[in-house]
Amino acid sequence: MKNIAGPDSRERMIEATISLLRGSGLAGAGINEIVRESGAPKGSVYHHFPGGKLQIATEALTVYSERVAAFIERALARKRLPGDKLKSLFGAFATRVEESAFRKSCAVGAVSLDLDADLEKLRPALAGALADWISLVASHFDLGDTRRTRSFAGLVLTTIEGAHVRCRAERSSRPFREAGAWLAEIVGRQDHG
Amino acid sequence: MKNIAGPDSRERMIEATISLLRGSGLAGAGINEIVRESGAPKGSVYHHFPGGKLQIATEALTVYSERVAAFIERALARKRLPGDKLKSLFGAFATRVEESAFRKSCAVGAVSLDLDADLEKLRPALAGALADWISLVASHFDLGDTRRTRSFAGLVLTTIEGAHVRCRAERSSRPFREAGAWLAEIVGRQDHG
Repeated sequence: MKNIAGPDSRERMIEATISLLRGSGLAGAGINEIVRESGAPKGSVYHHFPGGKLQIATEALTVYSERVAAFIERALARKRLPGDKLKSLFGAFATRVEESAFRKSCAVGAVSLDLDADLEKLRPALAGALADWISLVASHFDLGDTRRTRSFAGLVLTTIEGAHVRCRAERSSRPFREAGAWLAEIVGRQDHG
Repeated sequence: MKNIAGPDSRERMIEATISLLRGSGLAGAGINEIVRESGAPKGSVYHHFPGGKLQIATEALTVYSERVAAFIERALARKRLPGDKLKSLFGAFATRVEESAFRKSCAVGAVSLDLDADLEKLRPALAGALADWISLVASHFDLGDTRRTRSFAGLVLTTIEGAHVRCRAERSSRPFREAGAWLAEIVGRQDHG
């Protein structure tokens, strides 16, 4: 019983869910797939997550959101100049998708494109993750005023989500590096750079 | 039997598949869902599409790709100046997602984020659609040289796919209008604008 109830199997299920969501969205993260991928005993799923699939997915998205925030922060903090920060950020994402052999993208993006009326409960976790990442990106730039800086940070996130789509379809990380170079050009031209 | 084999039910199944793919990607477009959404008799699915779900999805993506190309062309052709073209394009997408009450996005984006090794056969249709749309966008702009113009058109598509993600999660069309304004700023600053 210890094995069934242990925090270890709970954690493994969350990790498995994150990996499955990044791979094919909510459809890929069924209870059976989570059990198979995590190696956790099937009986432990409803023990740890009485709310079932929606509860696991919500918790997985929360953990994922914090992890990606740390990833974004590390990439941006690595450089000082605005243009260099963007190239570092998009370069880090490019490396990340290459390492997954273009089989994993952003869990938030994949689940967002699965949303239907029945999944409305998941939406706040998705919108919240995007808002947090946008705030984090905004904190690294100054495009003159807060509204404009936040709008630019929004464009950065839009571009990251879109590059994930193209990378999967094209099996190439070029969309990230290309986007990073263009966005660096935008901030390079700001009067307040 | 005429009803089962008729071109009409074939077309309805393709339309239903496009709508389902736009809603929740490949997972949402199972044979049962296609039958339900199209109203076509179940027996007619394998009559028209002996290759099953992958065949319907591939054909639906081809029809969808041409339809979106026409949509992009109309929006870009409506204006003459580069910045205005971009605002027109992103405005058209914003209106389109509003009209779907933020429940439908891009079939190519949704399926791309579902891809796994078993679905590799679908990938050329996705990459092909993106490449066609990029060429089409590129044909409306001149950023000095062909390579740079095509790279910019790639950024436009990256941004469109990403805005679809954010619109679904945030239930807002702002990501499209915001991105359109930023991209218009890029081309507005080109020496060759």
